[in-house]
Amino acid sequence: MKAAYYTGDRTFAIESVQPPAPGPGEVAVDVAYCGVCGTDLHAYLGHMDARIGFHRIIGHEMSGVVQALGDGVDDMELGEHVVIRPLDACGECPACDAGHTHICHNLKFLGVDTDGAFQQRWCVPRHTVHRIPEDLPLEFGALVEPVAVACHDVRRSRLAAGEDVLVIGGGPIGMLIAMVAGQAGANVTLSEVSEQRLEFAKSQGFQTLNPKETDVGAAMYEKTGGKGADVVFEVSGTQPGVDTMTEAVSARGRIVMVAIHAEKPQVDMFKFFWREIELLGARVYEAEDFDDAIDLIAKGGIDCKAIITDVRDLDDIKSAFDALTTNPQAMKSLIKCS
Amino acid sequence: MKAAYYTGDRTFAIESVQPPAPGPGEVAVDVAYCGVCGTDLHAYLGHMDARIGFHRIIGHEMSGVVQALGDGVDDMELGEHVVIRPLDACGECPACDAGHTHICHNLKFLGVDTDGAFQQRWCVPRHTVHRIPEDLPLEFGALVEPVAVACHDVRRSRLAAGEDVLVIGGGPIGMLIAMVAGQAGANVTLSEVSEQRLEFAKSQGFQTLNPKETDVGAAMYEKTGGKGADVVFEVSGTQPGVDTMTEAVSARGRIVMVAIHAEKPQVDMFKFFWREIELLGARVYEAEDFDDAIDLIAKGGIDCKAIITDVRDLDDIKSAFDALTTNPQAMKSLIKCS
Repeated sequence: MKAAYYTGDRTFAIESVQPPAPGPGEVAVDVAYCGVCGTDLHAYLGHMDARIGFHRIIGHEMSGVVQALGDGVDDMELGEHVVIRPLDACGECPACDAGHTHICHNLKFLGVDTDGAFQQRWCVPRHTVHRIPEDLPLEFGALVEPVAVACHDVRRSRLAAGEDVLVIGGGPIGMLIAMVAGQAGANVTLSEVSEQRLEFAKSQGFQTLNPKETDVGAAMYEKTGGKGADVVFEVSGTQPGVDTMTEAVSARGRIVMVAIHAEKPQVDMFKFFWREIELLGARVYEAEDFDDAIDLIAKGGIDCKAIITDVRDLDDIKSAFDALTTNPQAMKSLIKCS
Repeated sequence: MKAAYYTGDRTFAIESVQPPAPGPGEVAVDVAYCGVCGTDLHAYLGHMDARIGFHRIIGHEMSGVVQALGDGVDDMELGEHVVIRPLDACGECPACDAGHTHICHNLKFLGVDTDGAFQQRWCVPRHTVHRIPEDLPLEFGALVEPVAVACHDVRRSRLAAGEDVLVIGGGPIGMLIAMVAGQAGANVTLSEVSEQRLEFAKSQGFQTLNPKETDVGAAMYEKTGGKGADVVFEVSGTQPGVDTMTEAVSARGRIVMVAIHAEKPQVDMFKFFWREIELLGARVYEAEDFDDAIDLIAKGGIDCKAIITDVRDLDDIKSAFDALTTNPQAMKSLIKCS
């Protein structure tokens, strides 16, 4: 079978390897599709070499079909359609003790800290496997993982129907958050500097603001009768995004920190005090977020066709990564692995 | 009767004035004691002139005795011992609409935006009045307001008995938060740079850390078996305090922003994301915090004697403020107004 190994700065080696057999407690999955995550792109650009090395199969936004079961796995059937929640917790740290295994102090992320899904067969621990409906296109199944991120972010916000939401940043995760929040009955506004992404957001029925042209905080206060956004998702990872989050949010509003801020931004702590604002960090997902994402996609709540920008073969994986690097307006590229 | 007017940079004028009569819906209170708040000290030092002007009676941490009732007030008796929750909300803004009147967009703070309690008789709206037990010393009653701040901060944190708490900053509010958290069954550690305040904290039974000598974040992780503080109260208003809050807190831990940060500090947003930390702004109090504070003081849960550094007459108000300015180790100075 084929496997795509990241082998250093912007290179993949497509290798022919022996299909792996599942170890005890593992499930072997024939990978159907695997999406390219922002993390994969970072890896491809050489930003994560210290963590992943130079002979690593990356990829984790996948769908597939159960091909074999390891010893002790007796609650699955061959041929079932599945997706993988790519987290392996230590089970022993204080976060695991408290039941927060998804933010385990020693968390292994499958496809980053272990080999991942840009290969034709992937063996994973049984506890990471979620079934998806047989009649759900496997292309759409590959979107479960990023949609689960969005479901987790929205769940962390305690969003209620009818609330005013601002999403700062309209990349794939920001757009999925907007979709999940919209499905939850929120009035969603998306702030983004790219005109193409703004057009995409409009085509999905969202209100939009371009911070190059508009004071987003003032606009949110105006459009909500002086209240501000009940919930703000900061997905931009920028200082202006962090400025906007406190400017746009309502008294007692909730801000969800989705973005990865490599630098420490300046934050308006006075506003947090003055208006009793709440900030909630949100990372990856828990099992119920995967269940929610599967349900949401299965009922047609996510416009999967619009999110999938293109589908390429595993042999063409480099071209998919290069296209994403040069086309930041793209949403989600899938790699067909089967 | 006498009233102390702030009349500009570090000056008070003690004036003889006609005792005020309560308007409709108001209660006239003969002020017994009024504590000096950090806000009063800011006013005294001329930092709030634009807001308060140059002929303002400040003060709000008071206790007193009901002297007269305005028209329409039929649920109080003359002679009752009371304290005042010095907030007057507009009742019409989005925060009031949502029930958060204490963070009203147009909030008037009595004793800042209106005349306050450094006088012998104070007329206030009925809705601001809380009864205190007759057998509670009125000196202790003057601590209800700052203790209510601490009760609000602790309530915002959703603190549970047995949790590990770090209080960053050991001034009067930090010390009261430590006391309220301790009464709630928390394991309290207080971080402070002043040796005198550290000694005071130790005398109250708290564990202490001096950030000049110890890496507070590492120390909190060590003393909690690698977990970190479940709840951190940032009361220092400093960049090092903001650094420590994210270093010391546990995964899914709660940080309560109590301090007023005039500058925007740099905040480790990555840590918020990575460990799903929560930040909760907390400002003043709600009615139930006053009720909680009265109950806590009445049952002896706050060491009021230790908190009260000194008591001076209204005529000596300037000396009290000057003493606080030169003695930052002082906790609470009371002015005897009766």
